[in-house]
Amino acid sequence: MENTAIGKSQIRWDAVAKVTGRANYTGDIPQKEMYHGKIYRAKIAHGMVKSIDVSEALKVPGVIKVLTPDDVSSYSFPTAGHPYSLDPKLSDKADRKILTRHIRLYGDEIAAVIAKTELAAEEALGKIKVEYEEYEFYLTPEESLKEGALEIHEGTKNIIADTTAEIGDLETGFKEADILIEHDCYTPTVQHCQMENQIAYAYKDVDGRWVCVTSTQIPHICRRILGQAFGMPWGRFRVIKPFVGGGFGNKQDVTIEPMVVAMSMAVGGKPVMLDLHREEVFACTRVRHAISYKMKFGFKNDGRIVAGDILAISNNGAYASHGHAVVAKGGGMVTALYKVPNFKYHAMTVYTNIAAAGAMRGYGVPQISYAIETFMDTAARKLGIDPFDLRKINMTKAMEENPLLHMTQYTMGLRECIEQGKERFQWEKRVEEVAAAKKAGKLRGLGFAAFAYTSGTYPKGLEAAGCRLVLNQDGSIKMMVGATEIGQGSDTVFRQMVAETVGVPVDMVYADQVTDTDTSPFDTGAYASRQTFVSGMAVKKAAEELKEKILLAALEFAEEGQEAETVDLDVKDCKVIKKSDGSLYTELGDLALKTYYHLNKGICLTADVSNKCIQNAYPYGGTFVDLEVDKVTGKVKIYNILNIHDSGVIINPLMASGQVEGGMTMGISYALDEELRYDSSTGKPLNNNLLDYKMPTMMDVPDLMVDFVEIPDPIGPYGNKSLGEPPNCSPAPAIRNAIADAIGVDINAIPITPQKIIEVLNAKDKEV
Amino acid sequence: MENTAIGKSQIRWDAVAKVTGRANYTGDIPQKEMYHGKIYRAKIAHGMVKSIDVSEALKVPGVIKVLTPDDVSSYSFPTAGHPYSLDPKLSDKADRKILTRHIRLYGDEIAAVIAKTELAAEEALGKIKVEYEEYEFYLTPEESLKEGALEIHEGTKNIIADTTAEIGDLETGFKEADILIEHDCYTPTVQHCQMENQIAYAYKDVDGRWVCVTSTQIPHICRRILGQAFGMPWGRFRVIKPFVGGGFGNKQDVTIEPMVVAMSMAVGGKPVMLDLHREEVFACTRVRHAISYKMKFGFKNDGRIVAGDILAISNNGAYASHGHAVVAKGGGMVTALYKVPNFKYHAMTVYTNIAAAGAMRGYGVPQISYAIETFMDTAARKLGIDPFDLRKINMTKAMEENPLLHMTQYTMGLRECIEQGKERFQWEKRVEEVAAAKKAGKLRGLGFAAFAYTSGTYPKGLEAAGCRLVLNQDGSIKMMVGATEIGQGSDTVFRQMVAETVGVPVDMVYADQVTDTDTSPFDTGAYASRQTFVSGMAVKKAAEELKEKILLAALEFAEEGQEAETVDLDVKDCKVIKKSDGSLYTELGDLALKTYYHLNKGICLTADVSNKCIQNAYPYGGTFVDLEVDKVTGKVKIYNILNIHDSGVIINPLMASGQVEGGMTMGISYALDEELRYDSSTGKPLNNNLLDYKMPTMMDVPDLMVDFVEIPDPIGPYGNKSLGEPPNCSPAPAIRNAIADAIGVDINAIPITPQKIIEVLNAKDKEV
Repeated sequence: MENTAIGKSQIRWDAVAKVTGRANYTGDIPQKEMYHGKIYRAKIAHGMVKSIDVSEALKVPGVIKVLTPDDVSSYSFPTAGHPYSLDPKLSDKADRKILTRHIRLYGDEIAAVIAKTELAAEEALGKIKVEYEEYEFYLTPEESLKEGALEIHEGTKNIIADTTAEIGDLETGFKEADILIEHDCYTPTVQHCQMENQIAYAYKDVDGRWVCVTSTQIPHICRRILGQAFGMPWGRFRVIKPFVGGGFGNKQDVTIEPMVVAMSMAVGGKPVMLDLHREEVFACTRVRHAISYKMKFGFKNDGRIVAGDILAISNNGAYASHGHAVVAKGGGMVTALYKVPNFKYHAMTVYTNIAAAGAMRGYGVPQISYAIETFMDTAARKLGIDPFDLRKINMTKAMEENPLLHMTQYTMGLRECIEQGKERFQWEKRVEEVAAAKKAGKLRGLGFAAFAYTSGTYPKGLEAAGCRLVLNQDGSIKMMVGATEIGQGSDTVFRQMVAETVGVPVDMVYADQVTDTDTSPFDTGAYASRQTFVSGMAVKKAAEELKEKILLAALEFAEEGQEAETVDLDVKDCKVIKKSDGSLYTELGDLALKTYYHLNKGICLTADVSNKCIQNAYPYGGTFVDLEVDKVTGKVKIYNILNIHDSGVIINPLMASGQVEGGMTMGISYALDEELRYDSSTGKPLNNNLLDYKMPTMMDVPDLMVDFVEIPDPIGPYGNKSLGEPPNCSPAPAIRNAIADAIGVDINAIPITPQKIIEVLNAKDKEV
Repeated sequence: MENTAIGKSQIRWDAVAKVTGRANYTGDIPQKEMYHGKIYRAKIAHGMVKSIDVSEALKVPGVIKVLTPDDVSSYSFPTAGHPYSLDPKLSDKADRKILTRHIRLYGDEIAAVIAKTELAAEEALGKIKVEYEEYEFYLTPEESLKEGALEIHEGTKNIIADTTAEIGDLETGFKEADILIEHDCYTPTVQHCQMENQIAYAYKDVDGRWVCVTSTQIPHICRRILGQAFGMPWGRFRVIKPFVGGGFGNKQDVTIEPMVVAMSMAVGGKPVMLDLHREEVFACTRVRHAISYKMKFGFKNDGRIVAGDILAISNNGAYASHGHAVVAKGGGMVTALYKVPNFKYHAMTVYTNIAAAGAMRGYGVPQISYAIETFMDTAARKLGIDPFDLRKINMTKAMEENPLLHMTQYTMGLRECIEQGKERFQWEKRVEEVAAAKKAGKLRGLGFAAFAYTSGTYPKGLEAAGCRLVLNQDGSIKMMVGATEIGQGSDTVFRQMVAETVGVPVDMVYADQVTDTDTSPFDTGAYASRQTFVSGMAVKKAAEELKEKILLAALEFAEEGQEAETVDLDVKDCKVIKKSDGSLYTELGDLALKTYYHLNKGICLTADVSNKCIQNAYPYGGTFVDLEVDKVTGKVKIYNILNIHDSGVIINPLMASGQVEGGMTMGISYALDEELRYDSSTGKPLNNNLLDYKMPTMMDVPDLMVDFVEIPDPIGPYGNKSLGEPPNCSPAPAIRNAIADAIGVDINAIPITPQKIIEVLNAKDKEV
């Protein structure tokens, strides 16, 4: 039967409310007598607090309390938005306290003010006096790993983890190689810059439990971490997520919730709000890991990879957060793309005194994609092989098992992405255009880069999701999911899934506006591009269960002479019909009324599914780009850029395109613009605001082309694989490859700013 | 095994928050930019609106809109908090519109103002000009049934229903009688006077649905009635009930919700609040039916009833509301108490031009109990039989089927209540005291009255309830019920049930603070004293299901060598134990962690139960009272008063006693103080405020004695039967009987005010 809801563009259910300002975000929810909290942050990058004098701060009118490390819970807790692990060895590092005397980054959290107004709290911050003992600080792994460096966290030697994943035998592999190619590259510290800053408020509830209303991607995980931060049973906390103005991974970390709960605890449970400034979000929440790569691969002359050695050193900043998981993910993504029969992936994650690095859209894959795909481009040139051909020679195939992740990829559409993408991009025509432009003395170039991704975290992390459906009296369906709508549109997609499977129009499926750990089914949250795949499985199972119950009820309440088996019946557009001839068996609304209101029979039909997903699927894709470098200004102008994705079946083409466009935009500025920088003499962030940290505006973004290769994946709930993070993975290497094509020089460290280009061009001129 | 939670006094979970003012009632929930609505009410009791001039009202600064009947939905809808009936013949009368030009009572709803402030709305009300065509109005059924009376609702002859229930043959019965006794009596119009007035606000939600936050006893029914009032699918509405400050049946009617939703619709979905004044609550929401009874019973000389004929005429006021159900219930309550082999119960429910009568604590049973129990007292005197003996001679027995309700009463503890009550009350000693006082010229008397009740509405109404339980990671349990906490403590009792059945401490079961039709399981609400019985069944089933899943999980996650079957295991105080020796099998918290976080196995354990209850149980009990009438002032002083109840097993003795004390207090003032009166020349209520409508204060209430006869009922989920309304049924007749004993005159119409007593004493003096 033809799909009725899946694969159809559907306006998100909250769209009108959001554009008309009627959707309530955390900061919009009014509270009676809300106090306001502010954090006193360290003015040095590394050291110890010798003394804190809050006496003047307490005199500011409206100030209720000033908290120092002695005044709050001192349990160490982890902050990463990972599911809890039953194996203590796999637990996230608990290296964080609510307030600290040990300063590990500029902006570290020393004290907190609670006041009747934000203004009073700010004023009091200015009156807190702190004396420090200052230590040497380290902005890069090179510095913090040097001989005799101070330990940022005691007993760690500043190494969070140092792991090596191996396949085959590297030495043997290198011996087999006809040519060895080395490649170093670097990806910078960047920030998520989600629209809505971190914001939360907390209060003591009527039953004595602690409620935290917060803009988070991970309500259920946040609840658990609150339990850990206060050493209390997790059930004593409740986390509520209203509409969220973006997260991109920055809210897949528990950055402010323990603090705001501690603030409320300090004032007897009154509501306290903590609303970070943009400057704090930049400098003191999470950033994307800067990673440097050293790579050496061995090839046969025909282009076949026989060995690969990658050393990845990841700058994790001052706290472990997601830690090693981000850089560690890279190895498996290399082997998802290419067959490397002898492979060594050596990853180190290192403490420094900058902002803690956590999850950010792509979770290490923008970095490894940058590394491997700039490398493939450089290698192709050295091997004299067309870069597309080099990729095709080495790429993995469908039904193969990933040798590092040990999961079979049932589909692998990179080849289709390249073929269809070249056509859509009019690659051959572009090649001619570029050749002509070059001839005319222009610095014009073409580039491509591929990526591989996953759909969720299994088997590295557990994947749990839940969905509860209720058949309303009018045949409409109330849907409750634990998956977290953070602006990506997941609830809209889940509504489509329910509509498709049960057989009702999408607008008769109602979503919740909040995720509430008290009432929403358990789900680990919005990350790892897991929701349409992992949570979608729970939604599908619940919808199937509800439909089965509907058909059984149709038989139970059948009229005289209406004989059938459930297998003979179906639901379509709110009607129970006979499959054989499509004739009406009963209206769903009439049936629902009977199930509710028959005096003796019938019940409210619900389906309550909790599901562990023990599968994973690999989406693929790539970016094609055509650009020109301005010789005088060093500016890059993108003429054409296409992202093409094998994400299996696309549930909602309109929203999927939006996802891709957003990811491409982030990828473009990752390549060309963004880097969070620090003052080497003070360790202070230099550009932690949206004026100095240049993000592209709509005026700066070129027209974006989006295309999909829809190969249904047999394990995706509706043939779908992930799409949330993938679009962010390949634009940067594709742009770097095109710039290399344009200027004839490989720039391996992003961002490739006009200054960097001009310096390279000047150096090249000198060479000549 | 001994109970751990059932039968234990337990402080209600919301007690501290309520006494410290932290519990949010509807009016406490802050909203951004809330508008305020006010209703323009008729200044005549019966007639038609000829014209409405709102021009001056619109000029009041801050007024947004003024609505007249033409501006709002004109669907007729019912308002009674009954489950929807699949049989149109059994549907509640849909005789109500949101605004009306046809005025049927003083205060009827003609127009509405929406303004930025309450003050502006009030000011605008004063500037609306209405011209009426006035009709004759009727305050009593006698008036509205008279020849040639105008029809308050067209085509009704002012009769809502006129039914007769019969057993045996009345004529034959009367022929068998040795003595015929007649008795007329009257119960007045009274009002619930719940602490919190009707209050609600409504707005258009993000998804275009209409949300009504309201102080209601019946959220799910309210949702349905909103659908009916606007002719829209029910799923398009969402009803949320915060904490409720009492209802006593007045909020088992949908009185203001369609109006407030209409107000929000008129302003594009902005939030609008409607907060009634006490005067409006008294005059324009619901009242208890005034009922007049004409009774004639035939007895054998030995006291056996052989025939009974009752005519009950019920004043339903201007709209049908719960209509006939209230007076109709009386017949079955007579046959629940006494065997009347030949019985006729003729009930009429009549429209008049006073406030519409609806549900009020006891639902017709305070009235019929007053009738039958004052009659039994009078009859006992005429027959020369001790009133207790007369009751015992005629009372029904356990395991008998009620001939009118056709449900078996598995237990019947009236005999035990009388025996245990007489002892507790020290009846024999009181008899001596009263005799001595009488000898000393005092007007002192003793009285008793019994009652029978039901536990829910089955089989007259359907009984549906739902409960969803979730095992939290720490072994605590999140409970979601559709049953409605309105101050009676139901959530506390449900927590005890879950704790008892699953095997955790009560404080590890967490309740919701709101009932929300979007997320709470379906349940018809708080009425008919149904919740511990009907909803308790759903709670018990869900708890049993969750426990079973816990035990299965314990086996699934058993350690090496830990062999068992689920039947060998139990849960006690958060530990899974072996039944055989009580030894620890696994900690519930540890097990819960595994079910959540095992990579491949395990899921979040939930139980989601929707249950149709097809049973009913009959609680019994009575009131003993010892009082003195002041000859000079006519005031009644109660020395001792005891309510004793057969409500099966008492779940929470502390809260049960509170329920009984509250019901007794209402019963005492029903007997002595309360009556809502109308001006016979205008039809305007005379005392619709708490200054003129005299309710007892704590200073006026005597010490109250409460006792229970705990006969476990085999069909009650925990052996329990209902207790909410029963305490309100027997105090009034017991007091009337004691006054009769004291003054030697039967006063058959309540309230027995000092004035009435003085008039009776004066008349008696004249006779002498």
